[in-house]
Amino acid sequence: MKIEKDKAKEIVEKLEFKDKLIPAITRDHEDKEILMTAFMNKEAVMKTLTTGLVHYWSRTREEIWLKGEESGHKQKLRELRIDCDNDALLLDVEQKGGACHKGYRSCFYRKIEDGEIVRIMEKEFNPEEVYD
Amino acid sequence: MKIEKDKAKEIVEKLEFKDKLIPAITRDHEDKEILMTAFMNKEAVMKTLTTGLVHYWSRTREEIWLKGEESGHKQKLRELRIDCDNDALLLDVEQKGGACHKGYRSCFYRKIEDGEIVRIMEKEFNPEEVYD
Repeated sequence: MKIEKDKAKEIVEKLEFKDKLIPAITRDHEDKEILMTAFMNKEAVMKTLTTGLVHYWSRTREEIWLKGEESGHKQKLRELRIDCDNDALLLDVEQKGGACHKGYRSCFYRKIEDGEIVRIMEKEFNPEEVYD
Repeated sequence: MKIEKDKAKEIVEKLEFKDKLIPAITRDHEDKEILMTAFMNKEAVMKTLTTGLVHYWSRTREEIWLKGEESGHKQKLRELRIDCDNDALLLDVEQKGGACHKGYRSCFYRKIEDGEIVRIMEKEFNPEEVYD
């Protein structure tokens, strides 16, 4: 899914950014598994909408980040939902490779069981081969 | 799902809060529909884990908020997942009524279609009858 610049701008102007950021939740467009969550600034939303490739804002590096730029694990936007307060986004994407920089399909690969943190997924790739 | 205080504290100590907050994504435990997203502070995570009822931190009201306290639309915690960086939570819940204060099952009741924002769900309740 891609949108032309004028339309994308109209949508971005309706969004509520807090400290210049809006949280985005990203799912696999097929089975709806939650892959990750991260923040976007206005420019990241604009780039995502106009290129069809998901961009985020890195709060630690303080820069725009094309997901998959280094790993090749890009996310192609298929659907975008907006929440009731216009202050959160839900993206359905085609995910190449795994979303998680630790080698898993999803960043949410652990859950609480009997008060302990346990792993519930196997690695899909070796992060050392994918990231410098 | 409920956890005793000592175990809950151990988990909370492992989490990374930014500006004292951590984002939480909340799904229906049965069909995995995303219901809402909001932030939690340490106390909200502790209360959620030890009472089994989901609490958030309201950034606008600047206070802890038991989801459903006013509307009765409480969320019973069924599963909790933690992301790779320990800085985001994914909750599966039993949702009473609708999660959205505008009357919808999910806060994500709108999507982008041909560059326009369109509604994709019907209201489940009348918010004027539920909220003061």
